[in-house]
Amino acid sequence: MKIVFLGSGNVATNMSIAMQNAGHAVMQIYNHRIESAKLLAEELKCSYTDQLTDISVQAEVYVISVKDDVIEELAKQLSISGKVVVHTAGSVPMEALSAATTNFGVLYPLQTFTKGRLLDFKTIPLFVEAADERTLAIIKELANTISSSVKEADFEQRKILHLSAVLACNFVNHLYDLSQDLLKVYQLDFDALRPLVLETALKVQKMNPHEGQTGPARRNDQLVIAKHLQLLSNNVPLKNIYTILTDSIVKSYQ
Amino acid sequence: MKIVFLGSGNVATNMSIAMQNAGHAVMQIYNHRIESAKLLAEELKCSYTDQLTDISVQAEVYVISVKDDVIEELAKQLSISGKVVVHTAGSVPMEALSAATTNFGVLYPLQTFTKGRLLDFKTIPLFVEAADERTLAIIKELANTISSSVKEADFEQRKILHLSAVLACNFVNHLYDLSQDLLKVYQLDFDALRPLVLETALKVQKMNPHEGQTGPARRNDQLVIAKHLQLLSNNVPLKNIYTILTDSIVKSYQ
Repeated sequence: MKIVFLGSGNVATNMSIAMQNAGHAVMQIYNHRIESAKLLAEELKCSYTDQLTDISVQAEVYVISVKDDVIEELAKQLSISGKVVVHTAGSVPMEALSAATTNFGVLYPLQTFTKGRLLDFKTIPLFVEAADERTLAIIKELANTISSSVKEADFEQRKILHLSAVLACNFVNHLYDLSQDLLKVYQLDFDALRPLVLETALKVQKMNPHEGQTGPARRNDQLVIAKHLQLLSNNVPLKNIYTILTDSIVKSYQ
Repeated sequence: MKIVFLGSGNVATNMSIAMQNAGHAVMQIYNHRIESAKLLAEELKCSYTDQLTDISVQAEVYVISVKDDVIEELAKQLSISGKVVVHTAGSVPMEALSAATTNFGVLYPLQTFTKGRLLDFKTIPLFVEAADERTLAIIKELANTISSSVKEADFEQRKILHLSAVLACNFVNHLYDLSQDLLKVYQLDFDALRPLVLETALKVQKMNPHEGQTGPARRNDQLVIAKHLQLLSNNVPLKNIYTILTDSIVKSYQ
């Protein structure tokens, strides 16, 4: 398929490269910051623009991968009625695209994309939704060429998938960050935690996290918990996080 | 070296097998529950007992790997003075072993051990400490045969390592568990999150978690945060966890 990307951030970069690798023609990259559009376009060897009026009308699918709160505004400024237009956001309804076309939909990848890390798209779950059956068929066809895990999800489900991803990824990464901060104060290196971090994630690839839970809160070991709270007595924010998560674990195994 | 294990739980199982594989003679397993001792002893093809009076005096090193709060009590009942005795706990001082011998120390593996998962010990960081230089040398020699990452750490450092492991492993796993609970309510499967969980851990194997942070809180995207809080309006405990971690991320990037 002929595809135009609006946006050139981490999601757009990963997804456009995956689509090109799957044999699609990524024709053009739009970004209101021309340098960002250029960077991705050079990677893809395609054209680029920072002008909405210069966006090609030759493509079949337009992928909008910009910040949540500008998706609707951007869609309003597009003149591509009759084309398939999708966004890639977890928490935005597909109707945000209705000003651009009647053939709108969603192509939501449930993954964290980071600058400089190109992921294997095949394993990334893609959740799709569309305004009509024909559009859904086109989005699914496209999605199936880049991922082996394509499922339909309505807006309610997609919002929950996004929220659960925040818990299992964004909050998790912040706990890694808090651990590193804590270790630094005692001249200890985060390297020591890396095998533990990896094993914790590997473990739940095959088992249920509820069964895999370990640690003082799981054993309701109040002696160790009291020692940890003592160590955190000068760090009230972290002490509060420790308390709320420990209580949650203890309750969950009562 | 000739080694006796007191305890036959997840840590003892993983560590004794690693020591045997490294060429040491694991002579005996003690557990007050004979069935548990027997299970590990059969794996190792060694003897076992549930009687402290039957513990062999022929070993050079005794590894105590039992619940934190019974380590000291167990050490008091041992008649192995002159032998090297270590425990494997993060939050217990080595002096808890002083009733058993003068040659006490610690061999603390920074990893999560789970029933049925045998890990490659080579990559597991081991933190050691001992009452005297000779004991330290013996513990280090033993540790180096099973892991390529052996470091000294005093009690203060070991407690912080344990605390940081609680954040980066136990709390992280609980967030996986909370995500699964949330998905279940909407007939969604945790399978959808597994690639994300793995990528989040893989990412910080090479990069700093602070740089790798993504998500609405990192962008201070108050619209999405408000939507998520709305979704959690009937789940006060999870709403509180969401709020405290989101606030912590927002503050950390201000």
